[in-house]
Amino acid sequence: MRIARFTTGEDPSFGIVQEKDGTDYVYGITGDPLYTEIRPSGKRYPLEDVRLLSPVIPRSKVVCVGKNYAAHAEEMGTEVPAQALYFLKPNTAVIGPEDPIVLPSYSTEVSLEAELAVVIQRMAKDIDPEQVADVVLGYTCGNDLTARDSQRAESQWFRAKTFDTSCPLGPWIETDVDPAALAIGSTVDGDLAQQGTTADMLRGVPELVSEISRVTTLLPGDVVMTGTPAGVRPVAEGSVIDVTIEGIGTLTNPVVRR
Amino acid sequence: MRIARFTTGEDPSFGIVQEKDGTDYVYGITGDPLYTEIRPSGKRYPLEDVRLLSPVIPRSKVVCVGKNYAAHAEEMGTEVPAQALYFLKPNTAVIGPEDPIVLPSYSTEVSLEAELAVVIQRMAKDIDPEQVADVVLGYTCGNDLTARDSQRAESQWFRAKTFDTSCPLGPWIETDVDPAALAIGSTVDGDLAQQGTTADMLRGVPELVSEISRVTTLLPGDVVMTGTPAGVRPVAEGSVIDVTIEGIGTLTNPVVRR
Repeated sequence: MRIARFTTGEDPSFGIVQEKDGTDYVYGITGDPLYTEIRPSGKRYPLEDVRLLSPVIPRSKVVCVGKNYAAHAEEMGTEVPAQALYFLKPNTAVIGPEDPIVLPSYSTEVSLEAELAVVIQRMAKDIDPEQVADVVLGYTCGNDLTARDSQRAESQWFRAKTFDTSCPLGPWIETDVDPAALAIGSTVDGDLAQQGTTADMLRGVPELVSEISRVTTLLPGDVVMTGTPAGVRPVAEGSVIDVTIEGIGTLTNPVVRR
Repeated sequence: MRIARFTTGEDPSFGIVQEKDGTDYVYGITGDPLYTEIRPSGKRYPLEDVRLLSPVIPRSKVVCVGKNYAAHAEEMGTEVPAQALYFLKPNTAVIGPEDPIVLPSYSTEVSLEAELAVVIQRMAKDIDPEQVADVVLGYTCGNDLTARDSQRAESQWFRAKTFDTSCPLGPWIETDVDPAALAIGSTVDGDLAQQGTTADMLRGVPELVSEISRVTTLLPGDVVMTGTPAGVRPVAEGSVIDVTIEGIGTLTNPVVRR
């Protein structure tokens, strides 16, 4: 099931994306898949007529993991960390499909990072890897935009990783996909940038979510970003970035400078 | 004005703390000082009869600054950073007065850090230092609990700084205090630990909030922690920590291990 958050000009609501007779539709639902019961609203919209929004806005946090693919650690000139390298993005960094990525004024070197994003459905604290599937709603595409020049200049990656629009998510939450071995990649203006598979993660989704839950309570709607494969590159004003994950879809965002 | 969030066994609500005839009272208010109009509820409670809660739960984030007092940077064996060193705590780390600080299972060296905490009242993005006073509701006492052993072992301070209960705030928000030169200190079981003044901050509240707002939008209820003076020390199970700031009050938390 593909759960989208969308608007047709009115308040945001949720819907299920399904193809019928060769056309993709959003079948409206009432309620919020994370917090309430959901029911069909009886309304149906052609997908191309709605504006998709970030499928989730975390009430608490986005937890990211760095250097979780060996080839990416290598291209950054760094070793694979002995223990998982976690950091936070705030919910104010989250944007949805087609929303512009606004390059921060203080950076001239912002890089894309395509990532599988895990959407948490149930509060999770001190859970074992075997319990992780029970607390996950599904998966979406994420982009961990990073100001590389800031990252090199600061010990903690605040300017580099938390700026507004630095966490595009979407296009929807796919609930029926196994995250263990999905093709994941990105393009810039249609040119291939990253091409990998989640099978190459050094630590998989169960291990990551379990360990994070031993540090900080994960709330419904929190998001775990699982690291990026090799091929990251700077993006420029006017570019359009696609992040595509097999079995989920494509997240597209233009890049602007204000 | 001292704005407290409290409960008498029912749902949390807000009140104004005032002394009358030698006794401190909480005068109940309806509404939420951050998001709605407030009115006197007509109810009054002796302060000692209510349970104070964290005066704010951020909807987005706590932004912290490291090494903002030269003497603390020195005691940590580090230089003062050339630019401000920012990092995040999630809202899930926030607890209130008298709530237990739960030492994380993975650490044997958790340290206290008394800090002046700034409570944001209005959304702030790209503001100048001169505009900061207009977006601040007031100030409270904060404690930036830090797992030093984790901090030494990880490049980004996730295990060290984001664990549940690692951000006590309280006892209330003082709206009528100038943060420029306040005595700030902490004790452990009554023994003096830290003793300093906010006048020794390398970067003051206007500079910090302004710069943070150029990276990430601050939302109403977000909190900025402004760094800790020298005298930090590990705390142990069974200890009681007091953080006291002149003109605000004392934040008290016991330390437990589960």
